[in-house]
Amino acid sequence: MPSQQGPTEGTVAEIGEFGLIDSVTRHRSQPEHTLLGPGDDAALVAAPDGKVVASTDMLVQNVHFRLDWSSPAQVGRKAVAVNLADVAAMGAMPTAVLVGLACPGATRTEQITELADGMWEEAERAGVGLVGGDVVAADQIVISVTALGDLRGVTAVRRSGARPGEVVAINGRLGWSAAGLAVLGRGFRSPVSVVNAHRYPEPPYAAGPEAAAAGATAMIDISDGLLADLGHVATASGVGIDVDSNALPVDQKLIEVASALGAEPLRWVLTGGEDHALAATFPSAREVPPGWRRIGVVAAAADRGVGVTVDGKPYEPEQGWQHWRG
Amino acid sequence: MPSQQGPTEGTVAEIGEFGLIDSVTRHRSQPEHTLLGPGDDAALVAAPDGKVVASTDMLVQNVHFRLDWSSPAQVGRKAVAVNLADVAAMGAMPTAVLVGLACPGATRTEQITELADGMWEEAERAGVGLVGGDVVAADQIVISVTALGDLRGVTAVRRSGARPGEVVAINGRLGWSAAGLAVLGRGFRSPVSVVNAHRYPEPPYAAGPEAAAAGATAMIDISDGLLADLGHVATASGVGIDVDSNALPVDQKLIEVASALGAEPLRWVLTGGEDHALAATFPSAREVPPGWRRIGVVAAAADRGVGVTVDGKPYEPEQGWQHWRG
Repeated sequence: MPSQQGPTEGTVAEIGEFGLIDSVTRHRSQPEHTLLGPGDDAALVAAPDGKVVASTDMLVQNVHFRLDWSSPAQVGRKAVAVNLADVAAMGAMPTAVLVGLACPGATRTEQITELADGMWEEAERAGVGLVGGDVVAADQIVISVTALGDLRGVTAVRRSGARPGEVVAINGRLGWSAAGLAVLGRGFRSPVSVVNAHRYPEPPYAAGPEAAAAGATAMIDISDGLLADLGHVATASGVGIDVDSNALPVDQKLIEVASALGAEPLRWVLTGGEDHALAATFPSAREVPPGWRRIGVVAAAADRGVGVTVDGKPYEPEQGWQHWRG
Repeated sequence: MPSQQGPTEGTVAEIGEFGLIDSVTRHRSQPEHTLLGPGDDAALVAAPDGKVVASTDMLVQNVHFRLDWSSPAQVGRKAVAVNLADVAAMGAMPTAVLVGLACPGATRTEQITELADGMWEEAERAGVGLVGGDVVAADQIVISVTALGDLRGVTAVRRSGARPGEVVAINGRLGWSAAGLAVLGRGFRSPVSVVNAHRYPEPPYAAGPEAAAAGATAMIDISDGLLADLGHVATASGVGIDVDSNALPVDQKLIEVASALGAEPLRWVLTGGEDHALAATFPSAREVPPGWRRIGVVAAAADRGVGVTVDGKPYEPEQGWQHWRG
């Protein structure tokens, strides 16, 4: 009897598709670049640059998140953040997200409204509108997020522009999500700063457009791990990249956690994904903007081959996460 | 041993994430409004109008499609078509789609490449680029599609602009998908024209921009059924809409199939969704563009209340499909 309950109680099957959409969209405000938000056949978003950056990601329950490890709100934040980071990695200012949500009919409505709260929270942090979506029935929670962005006159920064002699720099955290995953995997829930880093990333959205404006020649969002993602840049650019391990940020907190777990903190920093820091190449150290940290150099393929080395040597063969692989 | 197989044989777990992405994106061409296609952190799509229309939909195996009733290619066509229709229903020219695909690791790679073939086929029919995507592991096939579009200088046509005295018109087929579903549900596979109408819609993409240019005051994509979707227009516009049942297109083929199954063809036409015809309101019959068919009138709420009637009378309470409801 949905009519005897509050609008966010019961299951999604009880509240129904339109009730659910209403409960996650009403009383929300939109930024000025949302020209038309949810409720029509499609949304309308400002694209003053005359072109739009667009990226889509899917997150699957028990693959990308676990609701015994993360709250629904944290999952919502993560779902939006990972996708906005892709837009920032092109040098664009994120403008909007659209969300698809599949879930079983027996899902508690509160879980979905909390998930949506997290999405709205991250959207607001990034200054973007949550402009549209779809909710459907499925056996498992699956979230798709599509993010849009505006380049504001700068050229999109691709993976393919790195040139020998350039410097490699990062902005954002590395290894924190992997450390948090290791903690959760051992059954612990603290330290909270590390565990929360796994629950939701905090990508440096503004750093993407700043790097583009400063003349970044290549840029990527670090989702699979530093070495794996620099490997994508190296391949696309046809260059070698050498990382200076002494230049990498290995926070004292990671060292403490690694010590407690008998793990190697540098491995988390080099291969741990999901922190969604940004890595970029710049023509010289002079161009590296404030907030970015130099961690390596670009070398000619003729000198080092195409690929990534650490302190001049190969690190290890399996450098990142792939779906359906271990 | 993937190295001993062709690139599209085996399971998606064997070919892996990057192999799968490669097999569904290589050797594909893009239209000129795709400024940067798949392979980087995000795509770049022309938005010459300075704003972008965006819509997202999710399709779930055994909810929105059955692989024993439809081929993977037909499912791919449908997934793209239903979303492009939303963009057209705003009066925009579709420009691009992004696709998220979740599937079990044991899924045969051929199924996914055929699904992708269907997506590319429909994208090409509509003149849009398939510019980006994501593939992830899940227990069930879930497809998300986000479509983008450009208004080319016309004003977006919302659901809320219908005014008393205007005419209601449609473009595209009604009831065919419902008839096809009825046929399949009885275990038949013919007539093929009707069954295929259920397998994939053929939305009249060009009719959306044409209606916008002709002065349509409200427009909607008919996905839930004519009465349900006109109900959305009536509610958003605060008007009544009366449908003239004699003006509705009830094809001879639907009459034959209904007769064979003991069904009522007019019910399919009024309540069957998924054909993705467009319905729009125009200031007068003079404005209705070629190819559109007048089927009703807009009345003042004071005269008829807010809602939809057929030949001046209510039709029935349950007018469309809702998720998690029968």
